[in-house]
Amino acid sequence: MSSVRVGMVGYKFMGKAHSNAYRSVPMFFPKVKKPEMAVICGRDEAAVREAKEQFGWQESVTDWKELVQREDIDLIDINAPSNAHKEIALAAAKAGKHIFCEKPLALSLADSREMQAAAEVAGIKHMIGFNYRFSPAVQLAKDLIESGRLGKIYHFRATFLQDWILDPEFPLVWRLQKEIAGSGSHGDLGAHLIDMARFLVGEFKEVVGMSETFIKERPIASAMTGLTATKGNADTEKGPVTVDDATLFLARFENGTIGSFEATRFAAGHRSTNSFEVNGSKGSVRFDFERMNELEVYFTSDEEDVQGFRRVLATDGAHKYAEAWWPAGHPIGFDQTFTHEMVEFMNAIEEDRQPVPNFSDGVACQAVLEAVEKSVQERRWVELTEMEDINQ
Amino acid sequence: MSSVRVGMVGYKFMGKAHSNAYRSVPMFFPKVKKPEMAVICGRDEAAVREAKEQFGWQESVTDWKELVQREDIDLIDINAPSNAHKEIALAAAKAGKHIFCEKPLALSLADSREMQAAAEVAGIKHMIGFNYRFSPAVQLAKDLIESGRLGKIYHFRATFLQDWILDPEFPLVWRLQKEIAGSGSHGDLGAHLIDMARFLVGEFKEVVGMSETFIKERPIASAMTGLTATKGNADTEKGPVTVDDATLFLARFENGTIGSFEATRFAAGHRSTNSFEVNGSKGSVRFDFERMNELEVYFTSDEEDVQGFRRVLATDGAHKYAEAWWPAGHPIGFDQTFTHEMVEFMNAIEEDRQPVPNFSDGVACQAVLEAVEKSVQERRWVELTEMEDINQ
Amino acid sequence: MSSVRVGMVGYKFMGKAHSNAYRSVPMFFPKVKKPEMAVICGRDEAAVREAKEQFGWQESVTDWKELVQREDIDLIDINAPSNAHKEIALAAAKAGKHIFCEKPLALSLADSREMQAAAEVAGIKHMIGFNYRFSPAVQLAKDLIESGRLGKIYHFRATFLQDWILDPEFPLVWRLQKEIAGSGSHGDLGAHLIDMARFLVGEFKEVVGMSETFIKERPIASAMTGLTATKGNADTEKGPVTVDDATLFLARFENGTIGSFEATRFAAGHRSTNSFEVNGSKGSVRFDFERMNELEVYFTSDEEDVQGFRRVLATDGAHKYAEAWWPAGHPIGFDQTFTHEMVEFMNAIEEDRQPVPNFSDGVACQAVLEAVEKSVQERRWVELTEMEDINQ
Amino acid sequence: MSSVRVGMVGYKFMGKAHSNAYRSVPMFFPKVKKPEMAVICGRDEAAVREAKEQFGWQESVTDWKELVQREDIDLIDINAPSNAHKEIALAAAKAGKHIFCEKPLALSLADSREMQAAAEVAGIKHMIGFNYRFSPAVQLAKDLIESGRLGKIYHFRATFLQDWILDPEFPLVWRLQKEIAGSGSHGDLGAHLIDMARFLVGEFKEVVGMSETFIKERPIASAMTGLTATKGNADTEKGPVTVDDATLFLARFENGTIGSFEATRFAAGHRSTNSFEVNGSKGSVRFDFERMNELEVYFTSDEEDVQGFRRVLATDGAHKYAEAWWPAGHPIGFDQTFTHEMVEFMNAIEEDRQPVPNFSDGVACQAVLEAVEKSVQERRWVELTEMEDINQ
Repeated sequence: MSSVRVGMVGYKFMGKAHSNAYRSVPMFFPKVKKPEMAVICGRDEAAVREAKEQFGWQESVTDWKELVQREDIDLIDINAPSNAHKEIALAAAKAGKHIFCEKPLALSLADSREMQAAAEVAGIKHMIGFNYRFSPAVQLAKDLIESGRLGKIYHFRATFLQDWILDPEFPLVWRLQKEIAGSGSHGDLGAHLIDMARFLVGEFKEVVGMSETFIKERPIASAMTGLTATKGNADTEKGPVTVDDATLFLARFENGTIGSFEATRFAAGHRSTNSFEVNGSKGSVRFDFERMNELEVYFTSDEEDVQGFRRVLATDGAHKYAEAWWPAGHPIGFDQTFTHEMVEFMNAIEEDRQPVPNFSDGVACQAVLEAVEKSVQERRWVELTEMEDINQ
Repeated sequence: MSSVRVGMVGYKFMGKAHSNAYRSVPMFFPKVKKPEMAVICGRDEAAVREAKEQFGWQESVTDWKELVQREDIDLIDINAPSNAHKEIALAAAKAGKHIFCEKPLALSLADSREMQAAAEVAGIKHMIGFNYRFSPAVQLAKDLIESGRLGKIYHFRATFLQDWILDPEFPLVWRLQKEIAGSGSHGDLGAHLIDMARFLVGEFKEVVGMSETFIKERPIASAMTGLTATKGNADTEKGPVTVDDATLFLARFENGTIGSFEATRFAAGHRSTNSFEVNGSKGSVRFDFERMNELEVYFTSDEEDVQGFRRVLATDGAHKYAEAWWPAGHPIGFDQTFTHEMVEFMNAIEEDRQPVPNFSDGVACQAVLEAVEKSVQERRWVELTEMEDINQ
Repeated sequence: MSSVRVGMVGYKFMGKAHSNAYRSVPMFFPKVKKPEMAVICGRDEAAVREAKEQFGWQESVTDWKELVQREDIDLIDINAPSNAHKEIALAAAKAGKHIFCEKPLALSLADSREMQAAAEVAGIKHMIGFNYRFSPAVQLAKDLIESGRLGKIYHFRATFLQDWILDPEFPLVWRLQKEIAGSGSHGDLGAHLIDMARFLVGEFKEVVGMSETFIKERPIASAMTGLTATKGNADTEKGPVTVDDATLFLARFENGTIGSFEATRFAAGHRSTNSFEVNGSKGSVRFDFERMNELEVYFTSDEEDVQGFRRVLATDGAHKYAEAWWPAGHPIGFDQTFTHEMVEFMNAIEEDRQPVPNFSDGVACQAVLEAVEKSVQERRWVELTEMEDINQ
Repeated sequence: MSSVRVGMVGYKFMGKAHSNAYRSVPMFFPKVKKPEMAVICGRDEAAVREAKEQFGWQESVTDWKELVQREDIDLIDINAPSNAHKEIALAAAKAGKHIFCEKPLALSLADSREMQAAAEVAGIKHMIGFNYRFSPAVQLAKDLIESGRLGKIYHFRATFLQDWILDPEFPLVWRLQKEIAGSGSHGDLGAHLIDMARFLVGEFKEVVGMSETFIKERPIASAMTGLTATKGNADTEKGPVTVDDATLFLARFENGTIGSFEATRFAAGHRSTNSFEVNGSKGSVRFDFERMNELEVYFTSDEEDVQGFRRVLATDGAHKYAEAWWPAGHPIGFDQTFTHEMVEFMNAIEEDRQPVPNFSDGVACQAVLEAVEKSVQERRWVELTEMEDINQ
């Protein structure tokens, strides 16, 4: 079984997470096709060389256009800034490389569709980085739903609550600027909720939403890296926040399930509460990523006097991916979700099938995001069918 | 200090809860004006006589019209079926009696306003039974918000989740028939969430919602009492469910807070999850009535390395009403919320002021309920100002 | 069915709890034999008269010796200070009255045995106030064990943690003086754990323990009532604390179960954590009185991928006593444990059998308490058989 | 800054965990001295060669005696079976290599002391693998105690509860045989509790304990690897279990703290509940490794109405080691505890100081383990001073 030689564009937060995942696949999943950490690419030559050393890549380069053309590369991993995704992906697809692209696929639905079309024409394998699907506890939720053990699904409700910009003096980082980030909590956090809903429940039918920007202006950031930035003071000049601080929406799914969604960066005390609950005719499940090793599970079929939500630790052999790691009851962390994601990609390549989630999931997520935005602007319900006309 | 002689119309679930509250006031709050359990009234003479004995009233009668005219009665407590509230309240107000009315005030906003107007003209004291406000933990939440310790409020989110009609063979009880119950989970459960939001955050500005009836027909109930009923079988004739099984809505408040609400009877595993969370610029609070003695509290001002939600037990002298009961750490239950409610009414009468919540809160709640219903029907945002034209 | 006329000696914390229980039996358990609140007795004539009014007794008296002789009294309820229990109980038994006695039965094992013997000779019904048994969630634990659903029991571990005397300036109240209180946290809190263990697991075989008094002297209390007292200051004279602040012990039971026990008043943050866990060959249960409506339950027979502790709300018809109160999911409180206790006593009288727990349980608990004390003093394991020689 | 070339003896569960840690240090702690994964050693040539490939070592060998003599090796990592620790360590020390040794240091206190003495004579750096200390949440607990924010410590209570041998048909693996494993749950699980107590509270003064073997015989295992084994059936021959299934003990510390300890493999529903609680005069902390990213923290100095245990997520920059990983609120797992451990060892080497915990901690832990065993055998309290005579 030959290995898959990876060329990765990007080397910050996600570049580190992906690197860690690639190197962990052969160690913890030795029977899976091996990703080879061939080339890392970034614009700053010194920085990317340092990343190469630190993360364990064989080679570093600065020109992604050359990289995607190299014959010794099988897969292009795109975790450069979001507004660069499309151009790189189109070139990589044209060059016949498999593609792993971080979310969001692109900054617009039209662009996303263009990328999907290009990938399909090229006949490559493509995947999108909705890593939360790959928590063993989430996989258990999926299995309980698909196998019918929760019955017909009535409710889905999900929140992604953070508090890192609660302080009005927190500066105007790029994530708060629409031209760079596309949207605020909606695209950053809400996108994960939408993907989780599609994964667990199915396709959206219609949505109605609301958005709010609580702090309208912030100190202009003097310097920023990743998620951090130097805090402003009274004298710092201010600029307008052009994205949403919070976006909420209600939804109806094709299968009749109804849903509630909330993404915010203004929930004091919530560092990263990425949570969902599903209620079906035969049971319920509940998940919170802050306790990612646990799934709460309820069955209506339990005996009457002992019915209650069970706290299931998804850490033993009965749970997907778990056996590769530690003994029962020993937690795994955020990084493992990426490793599992890469296992899925390697398996898909080996088995000559599309991995899941792939670019079609990125497109579908983008369609819901934009339907919600349209709903917010037009103050009305928007059906997903309305988004079908938006093309490349 | 003279006592207040109560005449109570109704003797089922709420009649029992109120009776227990009246008899508990003098025992646990000996310094509070005493409610005297004078007369209990119901249509079934034998049944109401039995209730009189069981609950400890001095006298039982069957004609509420006579009761409201009696000179020896100071206060009329209305917990008869909802569709009887208005007629009794109007008569009691006219007779100059103080009124305690269970929620909902009436089946429509117009009727509610008529009742409020009548109460105001009569110059009586009036109160409505939103008992959940009177949990000490909820009082703590209120105090933290009002005193500014949570800062400016950004988010309110609340759910009231139950599962008692999840079984499709559960029969068509009166609570599932619009002509008797007015609405389903929305009016029954959502009303409590709306009142809680108004209590903690303030007035609603606009809403957008959705409703669903998952099980469209059910076996016609052969017999029913209160919340229970004989379950149907395959041969039982079915009739249409005419109320909502679930209603969700988003809201904007006058003060800029945004909110999310969900009331459902289809959340498997949730016996009665009446919960809310409030996020402000300086902290957050979280409450779930299933753990009614607890309030989770977060402050942004805590030292950096020990920030986290605190589980506060609202059972000691630092918490409103708590000192009247048991030592710190000893739980109180659902029944105490009613006792505290009656303490507030007695204090208001003694101090010659309106108790809170009163009929105006019943009207305001009804306005939000109907605005949501209008939004569901017309599939659009509805401003509360639109409800102002609805008059008696 | 005639009622049972009660004469109660004592009117403080426990007097109030018992009064509330007696008046609640007929209201919430109308089919149960009715306790009639006939006479309340205390030394301070004015205070006991006030208690009579407040709690709803028919008559107040000051001489318990006369009271126990009255022909119109069927049952004597003893909740006077612990050091008065024995004398009153012996007199009441001699007079042929049924007896409800608060825990501890007496200040010594010998005295306890004397009381039990007297009660048996008199042929009366006798009960001891281990109220925690009567939480519906605890009853569920008992049922799961007795029915074999937890299999063979291996482990019992229990803690009763409080923090009300953590402050060294908290004064030297009577509960900290051996001559009045008998012992400290051991007799006050540990006694409840011992009774719970006996209820759920069975008889003790041997124990080894340790005790500690962390704060050796405290300001002499200027005034004290029940659990509260005026705090001392720098100038207040100090006196020695003569009871244990904390007592821990290990135990072996007759049936092979092993156990761990801890009672302390020095566990910061614990208002009243009265908790236990039982592990058997087929499952486990966990309880904490601060969340008294819940029992956590685990079964080894659950399917492999969904094993986990269930949070069972013992608030619906499937749970003992629960149906008498509120709908599913609506909490009850500390007070209900007393009501259920009195229901058991009334039923036992009606059915002409001894109620459980009775004086023999008080004696058995006292034997374990004293075995632990002996173990602490002699720094060795003490078998319960060693306590058999201690007689009246 | 030169790197540290590691030679590792052992390649199973702990070999994998250590390998993952060594390779993670340079990636996530780039400023720390780098461990170089030079040589992996095991008896089975094919298996160790495979491990070399899988884990990323430069070379594999089969003779540890040669390995410890190699000049190109700076550090010997010993995670071979426990009964081989001593011989390897003595040789490595003699050869002047730094040593990382998994717990237990050796199978007896005498052996442990011999190892410590040899290491001291050799002047090498030595460390023992008590990895749980290195959870950021545990580091926070340590910091709160050391800085005095919890005040004087009164109580320490800890449990390590598992359930993997609950089934009587689970076979007689090596961990259940005294000659190989030394002891059962006591040495395997209890050792971690003892080390945690010493880390947080200080030195032990005296102990009293009890042990139990619930299942006296088990099917002889046909094949076993690491923690798993083929389950027996009715026909399988049985052999005696020669270690403890559960060991509990009480303790007094030098500083006056009192403690309770329980280690068992018979706690149904507990996969790996490694938990502790510390109560001090100014506050408390609580930890459970199943939720290793959280520390519950209580302060008596909080305002009266909002006192309660805080759920602190130790995942942001205010917490030791956390910044190296993911953004706030994103969990880390079991593997990171080993990475942090190796960071400490590398830092100690760079700074020319002994790392903590080192062989002296291994010895001290062994002394407590054996004191408890002595107490169990002799059914009495054993002072730690009694263990001082036990020498190499």
